[in-house]
Amino acid sequence: MQTVQILLIGLGNLGLRFCQILLEKESFLRRRYQLDLRLVGAADSRGAAYEPLKGLELEKVVELKRGGGTIADYPGAGKPGWKAADLVATADADVLLEASPVHLEQGAEPALTCVRTAMRRGMHVATPNKGPLVLAYRELHDLAATYGVQLRFDGTVAGGLPALYVGQRDLRGAVVWRLESVPNLTTGYVMDLLADGLTWEEALDSARQAGTLEGDGAWDLEGWDAAAKLVILANAVLDFPARMEDVALTGITNLDGDALRSARERDERYRLLAQAERCADGTYALSVAPVPLASDHPLGRLGRKQMGVVFSTDIYGAIIAIIDEPSPIPSAATMLRDVLDIYV
Amino acid sequence: MQTVQILLIGLGNLGLRFCQILLEKESFLRRRYQLDLRLVGAADSRGAAYEPLKGLELEKVVELKRGGGTIADYPGAGKPGWKAADLVATADADVLLEASPVHLEQGAEPALTCVRTAMRRGMHVATPNKGPLVLAYRELHDLAATYGVQLRFDGTVAGGLPALYVGQRDLRGAVVWRLESVPNLTTGYVMDLLADGLTWEEALDSARQAGTLEGDGAWDLEGWDAAAKLVILANAVLDFPARMEDVALTGITNLDGDALRSARERDERYRLLAQAERCADGTYALSVAPVPLASDHPLGRLGRKQMGVVFSTDIYGAIIAIIDEPSPIPSAATMLRDVLDIYV
Repeated sequence: MQTVQILLIGLGNLGLRFCQILLEKESFLRRRYQLDLRLVGAADSRGAAYEPLKGLELEKVVELKRGGGTIADYPGAGKPGWKAADLVATADADVLLEASPVHLEQGAEPALTCVRTAMRRGMHVATPNKGPLVLAYRELHDLAATYGVQLRFDGTVAGGLPALYVGQRDLRGAVVWRLESVPNLTTGYVMDLLADGLTWEEALDSARQAGTLEGDGAWDLEGWDAAAKLVILANAVLDFPARMEDVALTGITNLDGDALRSARERDERYRLLAQAERCADGTYALSVAPVPLASDHPLGRLGRKQMGVVFSTDIYGAIIAIIDEPSPIPSAATMLRDVLDIYV
Repeated sequence: MQTVQILLIGLGNLGLRFCQILLEKESFLRRRYQLDLRLVGAADSRGAAYEPLKGLELEKVVELKRGGGTIADYPGAGKPGWKAADLVATADADVLLEASPVHLEQGAEPALTCVRTAMRRGMHVATPNKGPLVLAYRELHDLAATYGVQLRFDGTVAGGLPALYVGQRDLRGAVVWRLESVPNLTTGYVMDLLADGLTWEEALDSARQAGTLEGDGAWDLEGWDAAAKLVILANAVLDFPARMEDVALTGITNLDGDALRSARERDERYRLLAQAERCADGTYALSVAPVPLASDHPLGRLGRKQMGVVFSTDIYGAIIAIIDEPSPIPSAATMLRDVLDIYV
């Protein structure tokens, strides 16, 4: 039995669900993989807790957070004054899970600092947070190599779909001529409602009530989320050092309902399509834009809770991967996938 | 630069195409992965060739075989009296690629002996040949562990689709409630022609001319091919030690055109569906049967050159993987994927 000591930053949508998954899977993971995954430290926006010996009890963490509290109130182990970065700089652990929300406009901080610090201190890192990868892809990979640790980020692209693993591992040896992806749920959801005949206001209200739209929605609706995912795909799968400014970006905010309704009548579905097309010089042209997809397009039948990617290659044909993700659980579970990929 | 010495058994549909892929990719593989993949020995049904120092020249191998010759005629290195098993028992190499056709009725020989011998002699094995895996899955995995070598067989299921890699790696930690797969091209091709209104005789003739149907077609049409792939999926992904006799098997030979045509009118497509359904006791019920798939089924829109698999899981949602495989090149390329998975 191998014990893996885990630090978890972020106890919201993904972090808390990861705790629930771990709670449910603990004994299965011990039996199946001889792994004892132990949460020794955690931080939310109000504080942290650290219990290096026994680990934090997952039931208590879930209970505290569900009750609206902070992890800093964890009996005996709570550290009310601490920030996430303090925990990562101080605590001893094997893996950092960085599951805080993406904040590109803040330079992806404090996540980027936490990821850097963890690697320098010898921890592996698994994160579904796009921010650090988008802003510092090369630097973080070099850092991982320098310190001999693993960096995993499967959850950054298309939720629980193993798009990055398939692209990085199963396409080795191939040239990817074209990559097409529908990596964002919110935009498909909103466009489907507009095609149903709802007004923009009604569609956004509905998406907000369904928990699909967060904040003012600009991150999703203006296409930044899809562009960030495309940048990560380009770096990880296409070996092309793209940055956000390399993406020709068109969001969905200027679409009108008429275009969407008439596409529906032609049996087409609008989706925010992120594309990378290989150029003659071996670089890629990257774009994100709403596109009406015909029903025979590999991604033309995606439902409101589905995302997908198509890799068109020279020697492996076209490989299509789609996820039906009715809840955020698969996105949270990518951290488990990443940890098991490191240790199994 | 690492040199990997390769033995290749079988220079037909897959083996010869692998040589062509390697010829095309040699310099790319050196540059990208610092790997020099060197074919040092090869065997076809009429003899073998072995050239341990320089390796066999891929151009010459391709030329010989395209001209209808045997590898035993390879100048200087040909061994006319040798069988595949002689080559594997004698030659020094790092990896065996076993790409001979499947012969379950012959106990998967001589492939099974070649695979066993190679592992006992310290070689890794990569094979798209279902026979050895179907008949001796557990034994071969134990042998690999005993001799500290790797066994890869991505090409055994659904051609170039990385169905096994996705299932074995990206679903770690999950319970698979249901696995559905359309892993065979021939049956879909024939059923589509029947739905078009062709008679059975016309459909089989057409499939034979297109190179889709081999021999009398029984292996494909009676469902043995799909059942073999399901058995491998069950062992590799579901950790369920299934054998051929555990599969409730219905081929397509008793289907009549009327059923297929009326399904087409309902916008449904018949496909030979291989399924594994989890039972209350943790085992799986396995079946292969032709099924009319509605257009909203994840595999309901597969074209004639497409195969796919759906994994319905507890924590990763439903993951759908589909390949569009217009030629046998992706199936042959799985051996490259496997070798790179071992060495990169």
